[in-house]
Amino acid sequence: MEPPEQKNTQAGQSLCSSPVLDYLNQLHQEYTPLNQGQVATYIPELAKANPDWFSICLVTTSGAVYEVGDSRQSFTIQSISKPFVYGLALEDNGREPVLQKVGVEPTGDAFNSISLDPGTGRPRNPMINAGAIASAGLIAGKTSQTKLRRILETFGLYAGRELSLDKEVYGSESETGHRNRAIGYMLRNFDILSSDPMPVVELYFQQCSIAVTCRDLGIMAATLANRGVNPVTAKQAIRGEYVESVLSVMGSCGMYDYAGEWMYNIGMPAKSGVSGGVMAVLPGHLGIAVFSPRLDSHGNSVRGIRVCQALARHLDLHVFNRPSVGGSIVRVRFTAAQRTSSRVRTPEESQALHQFGSQVRVYQLQGNLAFGTMEELVRYVIEGLDCFSYILIDLKRVLTLNESACRLFYQLVCKLSALGKATVFAHAEQLPLLRRYMKVKLEKSFDEQYRVFEDLDLALEWCENQLLETTLPGAMVAHVDEARDYQLFGKFTDQEISVVVPRLKRQSFLKGQTIVKAGDPAGELFFLSRGNVSVTVKMASGITKRLATFSAGMAFGEMALIDRAPRSANIVADTDVDCDVMALDDFENLGISHPGIKIKLLENLCLGLSSKLRKVNRDISVFD
Amino acid sequence: MEPPEQKNTQAGQSLCSSPVLDYLNQLHQEYTPLNQGQVATYIPELAKANPDWFSICLVTTSGAVYEVGDSRQSFTIQSISKPFVYGLALEDNGREPVLQKVGVEPTGDAFNSISLDPGTGRPRNPMINAGAIASAGLIAGKTSQTKLRRILETFGLYAGRELSLDKEVYGSESETGHRNRAIGYMLRNFDILSSDPMPVVELYFQQCSIAVTCRDLGIMAATLANRGVNPVTAKQAIRGEYVESVLSVMGSCGMYDYAGEWMYNIGMPAKSGVSGGVMAVLPGHLGIAVFSPRLDSHGNSVRGIRVCQALARHLDLHVFNRPSVGGSIVRVRFTAAQRTSSRVRTPEESQALHQFGSQVRVYQLQGNLAFGTMEELVRYVIEGLDCFSYILIDLKRVLTLNESACRLFYQLVCKLSALGKATVFAHAEQLPLLRRYMKVKLEKSFDEQYRVFEDLDLALEWCENQLLETTLPGAMVAHVDEARDYQLFGKFTDQEISVVVPRLKRQSFLKGQTIVKAGDPAGELFFLSRGNVSVTVKMASGITKRLATFSAGMAFGEMALIDRAPRSANIVADTDVDCDVMALDDFENLGISHPGIKIKLLENLCLGLSSKLRKVNRDISVFD
Repeated sequence: MEPPEQKNTQAGQSLCSSPVLDYLNQLHQEYTPLNQGQVATYIPELAKANPDWFSICLVTTSGAVYEVGDSRQSFTIQSISKPFVYGLALEDNGREPVLQKVGVEPTGDAFNSISLDPGTGRPRNPMINAGAIASAGLIAGKTSQTKLRRILETFGLYAGRELSLDKEVYGSESETGHRNRAIGYMLRNFDILSSDPMPVVELYFQQCSIAVTCRDLGIMAATLANRGVNPVTAKQAIRGEYVESVLSVMGSCGMYDYAGEWMYNIGMPAKSGVSGGVMAVLPGHLGIAVFSPRLDSHGNSVRGIRVCQALARHLDLHVFNRPSVGGSIVRVRFTAAQRTSSRVRTPEESQALHQFGSQVRVYQLQGNLAFGTMEELVRYVIEGLDCFSYILIDLKRVLTLNESACRLFYQLVCKLSALGKATVFAHAEQLPLLRRYMKVKLEKSFDEQYRVFEDLDLALEWCENQLLETTLPGAMVAHVDEARDYQLFGKFTDQEISVVVPRLKRQSFLKGQTIVKAGDPAGELFFLSRGNVSVTVKMASGITKRLATFSAGMAFGEMALIDRAPRSANIVADTDVDCDVMALDDFENLGISHPGIKIKLLENLCLGLSSKLRKVNRDISVFD
Repeated sequence: MEPPEQKNTQAGQSLCSSPVLDYLNQLHQEYTPLNQGQVATYIPELAKANPDWFSICLVTTSGAVYEVGDSRQSFTIQSISKPFVYGLALEDNGREPVLQKVGVEPTGDAFNSISLDPGTGRPRNPMINAGAIASAGLIAGKTSQTKLRRILETFGLYAGRELSLDKEVYGSESETGHRNRAIGYMLRNFDILSSDPMPVVELYFQQCSIAVTCRDLGIMAATLANRGVNPVTAKQAIRGEYVESVLSVMGSCGMYDYAGEWMYNIGMPAKSGVSGGVMAVLPGHLGIAVFSPRLDSHGNSVRGIRVCQALARHLDLHVFNRPSVGGSIVRVRFTAAQRTSSRVRTPEESQALHQFGSQVRVYQLQGNLAFGTMEELVRYVIEGLDCFSYILIDLKRVLTLNESACRLFYQLVCKLSALGKATVFAHAEQLPLLRRYMKVKLEKSFDEQYRVFEDLDLALEWCENQLLETTLPGAMVAHVDEARDYQLFGKFTDQEISVVVPRLKRQSFLKGQTIVKAGDPAGELFFLSRGNVSVTVKMASGITKRLATFSAGMAFGEMALIDRAPRSANIVADTDVDCDVMALDDFENLGISHPGIKIKLLENLCLGLSSKLRKVNRDISVFD
């Protein structure tokens, strides 16, 4: 049976192969001559395996699948089923009830050792047969058929395709599995199994006889590396909270009496099976599977172990060899003295923001927010408390956030609020956990204290406005009464004003009305007398982005008068708006009738453009 | 003895305490009433400990120290010395020779079990006394004094302060340590110790009697979390390559017969001691220490275990519960069609870059580059191979890089080079490992293939220039012969040209000469006839930053003519340069004598400013 086609990074799709695939091919070649070990013979069906089969598969948590060799060869999963069934038992029963039936201590004994606790009869761990049979006994389902179906479905979620039993191997297992039946009765004797042990042992034989490929195992391993979400299909195979438990027993007990050395040399939770598979997991990074049926005396695949060792060494995969996360979550930090919103400010406002803008501190975060990464942000904020009044946290680039990160955010909000300082979030909607956490914790003060803006720009403008209200009270003008107060008429004499005023025509727009439409021919220059307007463009992504917001006293639509090009963006009334409008022809004619006025107008235009250019240059420098 | 004052995040330094410290205080209060367990009595000196002592210390890999309770109370390190001495033995001997003397398999037995391998007499692991004594026997040094001094020095590097022996405890240990002497002779019998075992056992008593505080242990744990570099002092206490080995034995054998359950519930490599200390490590994130002398029947601190459990649960610290690193290393990606260097381009060049700029792909990377994170970059590059000719990798924001990341970079460079495509690096100087790796691997082609630029802007300009040479051959003009070719005289009539030409004066500058100096009064407008000039500013950091580079045909220094402000930046000749210069007075007077010409000049100026503004707005959008 061929697995369905999936997203796959193999040669032939591009001009050249991936270095990752090259590397796996090289490893495959290097270890192909290694033909020590024996194919398992304790079940007749297993002995039929071709001892030369050999494949390697590496799957990342971002869903790239690299596979070489006989990676689509079907074989039975055998003991590698144990962690997955244990995970399902945890989901079905919860952690405590499972721990009462199966321990989590390594034994240092071989895979088929019985290893029951002398007092309670509890198997030492779920990776030995006794513990695996006890785990199978914990799978929910009214009938044996239901239980098997649930196991198959779960394994299918891990593998990203429908899986089925290899009936020959199952028959062979069942025929020869007397030792496991003995274990079953021993577990029944201690009440670890609370009903007839025979159907449970059969279910165990069945779970071991599920047919998989090396590719399947790689994806299954990557699903464990990805907190239970299959990175190829994006489907959840096991609840994230149980993944650490499954990996813990793999880490301490997964490689039988080889577990300590395995953790020491390879440093990844792993599981092997007698059919020749080995699966290893580097949490957060990747899953690995190797398939080669020749086994060593421990019952582990000879090539499997060697290839895992080589991978771990070459690729630095040891779970305890991780670089510091310090300095990794703040993508950009700046104050409103360094960068401001796209609200165009009057010179006085700009001056005030330049002077007092450090009261607004902005942190754009990135990556995964957890205690270890968040601590640094919290420290910056607490250490700088006497230097700011507003803290703005942009979550746009955050990939994940856990509850301990939520708790730190909540505590920050409360502490700052008690000191009369405001916390503001941008792009919080993509992290619903944060909203839920804040809602529960802040209770009645939620609406007031959990300030959330759609994007950084709007959040920054809100902070600026708050700041300007305290530092420049009354300076944010609502309307301009006299033409001489328009910035473009700066330094105009009374006589010059009296020339331009008759050329202005009053136009009014309602809130939400489009004043200028992208693509339209340009026919006028607008002086904003009352209200606000925003320049917006529609991005390729479909999102409307604000380029600038103008307020009373400013002019807009002026560039089209110089380059005679159609309008390049939409301009929309944010409020009810009054404008004084100068027609293109009047603007042109000024050059002939009153060249001095036109020169002054153009000089003011240059000054305006140049100050915008300086602002954007300053804005961009915070990213570098 | 009080430890020296160090960087410390405690209350009182700021307007309010850190939420992290609040949390630890809360935990401390919560577990203070827990007074089960008994102070160790097997050594009389230990029995003198105050059973109520209780402290918690958490230290991050970025060097923040949070401590509550009796965190400066001195106590002897006892068994927590074992992993650190084992680490020193690894450094002194290498991994293989140490593994021949001490195994790495958990025993499931109690701390004082002898647990030697029946055949070889090799202690099962270095965390049991037998293995720890064998490790002490592997410490290099001519005399016992030297060995002790080396251990004290190493522990001091971990703790960030000078440590010393508690002589009373040592005396007491030595008086009562008959079982350990028996172990010493047993190890001598099997030749695990190759000389008189008694001095080795004494050294072991001494290492156990080193006095530390809970704060010390927290910093020591954080040093292990930080790949062997003390995050407070930035000094290396153990070579990074051995840290994973030390943590592996802590992970599999650190908590005696409680190891499996510890890994399952708490999920961090840890070590406890009979004096009441517990230390736990979350690699890459943090170190934790708890001190409370009352012990449970396993010999572990009762509060220590409970506080570690609470911390692990509240803060999600399990080492196997890590979010995906996918999507975490590319900070910004764009092509030269989206953002260009600060080299100011002619309209034709801009058009060509807009059209063909997607041939240049830029990736700014961030964080820690390892196989799991780099794979994604490699995949983007390989999958898009037929769409680009130049790949630019900016390493400015990269925190660390390991050898497997270097290997992938090397393989990319080779593969792209074989296809006639260029790889270019910016800010590579901060990662000397990459240079060394490339030098060794590329050998003779190193200089040609390892293209490195000081910053992203220069690297991007190089790629643009390469692209323009192929797409616009000959278009990058070296000089402008006629005034009509100056952009600012665009659409001028012959008659208008003949008015301005007499007002231009030729000035020449040598390469490197400063043409305009920031702060000087502005007296002229420059038209660049031949060569390149760059506008630069000195940043607060002392670094000189290029704002723009102009080439033949462009004008500079023009804004000062309009705002009459002093020069805002330096302008330096990048090459030998010829300019046509118009004096401020001539520019002013044009408005009176030839207003039409001045209007055209100002309109062209507006067009130039507006196109610069559009460029910077486009540039900034790649960051959002």
